[in-house]
Amino acid sequence: MRIGVVGLGLIGGSLALALRERHDVTGYDIDEAARRAAASDGIRIGSKLDDLVPADAVIVATPMPAIVPTLERLATRSNGAVLLDTGSLKRAVAEFAGRAPKDARIVGGHPMAGTTSSGFSAADRHLFQGRPFLLVPTERSDDAAMAVAGTIARDAGGTVTVCSAAVHDRAMARLLAAPLATAAALAVAGAEAAPLVSAAGPGFRDSTRLADTPLDLAVELLFASAKDSRAAIVSVIDGLEQLSDRLDRGDREYVQSFLRTARSVRDELG
Amino acid sequence: MRIGVVGLGLIGGSLALALRERHDVTGYDIDEAARRAAASDGIRIGSKLDDLVPADAVIVATPMPAIVPTLERLATRSNGAVLLDTGSLKRAVAEFAGRAPKDARIVGGHPMAGTTSSGFSAADRHLFQGRPFLLVPTERSDDAAMAVAGTIARDAGGTVTVCSAAVHDRAMARLLAAPLATAAALAVAGAEAAPLVSAAGPGFRDSTRLADTPLDLAVELLFASAKDSRAAIVSVIDGLEQLSDRLDRGDREYVQSFLRTARSVRDELG
Repeated sequence: MRIGVVGLGLIGGSLALALRERHDVTGYDIDEAARRAAASDGIRIGSKLDDLVPADAVIVATPMPAIVPTLERLATRSNGAVLLDTGSLKRAVAEFAGRAPKDARIVGGHPMAGTTSSGFSAADRHLFQGRPFLLVPTERSDDAAMAVAGTIARDAGGTVTVCSAAVHDRAMARLLAAPLATAAALAVAGAEAAPLVSAAGPGFRDSTRLADTPLDLAVELLFASAKDSRAAIVSVIDGLEQLSDRLDRGDREYVQSFLRTARSVRDELG
Repeated sequence: MRIGVVGLGLIGGSLALALRERHDVTGYDIDEAARRAAASDGIRIGSKLDDLVPADAVIVATPMPAIVPTLERLATRSNGAVLLDTGSLKRAVAEFAGRAPKDARIVGGHPMAGTTSSGFSAADRHLFQGRPFLLVPTERSDDAAMAVAGTIARDAGGTVTVCSAAVHDRAMARLLAAPLATAAALAVAGAEAAPLVSAAGPGFRDSTRLADTPLDLAVELLFASAKDSRAAIVSVIDGLEQLSDRLDRGDREYVQSFLRTARSVRDELG
């Protein structure tokens, strides 16, 4: 297929590197340095967004706030190309698709892979290998569009799961936003461990690691689907209140059973 | 020095292996298999607890519920030997010391190292290398006893910090109990991410890893100093409530500043 990739950071760059093995890939980034870095790694580069069409598909892998504006711009000139984004939340894309031109073909995508590094220099064609690649159909997704998106996800190395935008965003609030908020709250509460904060072991370090998420991305993750984020955080608060209450009452049995439930969720992670 | 070690699990076994390079070490464990494993690794083994005295020091590295009973038993026959425990919480040891025989010498110790494995088979003489080894003086700690405990901690490879039992337990509630409770609450809330739980990335996995803490140890960590655990959990709840409230109001600025504070605590971890 002819595939365009907008946004040559960690995700877009890794997709371009993975997909060019089987497809005709052209990349574009508004940042000249990113374009140069990708070109020097052998990726064909367009000099403007419009150079990516005509194509069978255009992947939109920009930072989250730029995803809908970029889809909006491409939708009027995509001429049948499947537009597939890669953001961590899908409701906004689904909403945009509902009001996009009737002939636009739009699929939400979310490759669940990443590192704490960013930028094309961190891109790796194996990034998606064996990782879940979630696909969310929109009002502008026909079967053929879903098939194209599926081929892209699989050729990038991912394992495809299809779900609705609502299910996706509710799940991500629990898997991404709540852990982020919790890491921050734990770290802030950890300040009261002074003067022993620096004695913290790997448990505290791992539990608070997400507090190091780049600030813009963190705020975007929390606010892009704020209602879902709140619900997920409230659900963590509920659990902590139960535990704190039972600690007060000396109810070891309840705490044990809570910990067993937690462990059974961990077991599902495989 | 002549040093006895009661409890040849991960911590006691590792201490025995590390200390025998410079000291005359004898170990003991109520479990015969543990005694055999340590013996086959060349550690001299006593056939009963009393074989560890006379000595310059006896390290009590049993599971937490057995620490005070073991100290109690040793205190009447230690004849000047410094009794140093290695539990994660220190208030109970400090309380016991307050009512121990006047000639007993008792120091609380907490080597902050560990792995998810346990038992002598996981013991490693490098376990404490460069890790904090906290020492808590009690009413039965004189200068000479603190010096002996300091030598043991340093010869095991640790970096010594001295603090009070109250400061220690308050800090540990924030560095150990709160992360454990939070990991469990996050995992339980994560169940609502169904059917996408298995798509969870490294962030969710790391954030919930402590929910896999062996059940007995987890319950002990939460309940041994229940008041401190509760206070630490309530402090995490406070942070989460702030975040959830500001998400509701769309207050990005507050959330950013909260995340910045969290990151500054992470920076202290070094």
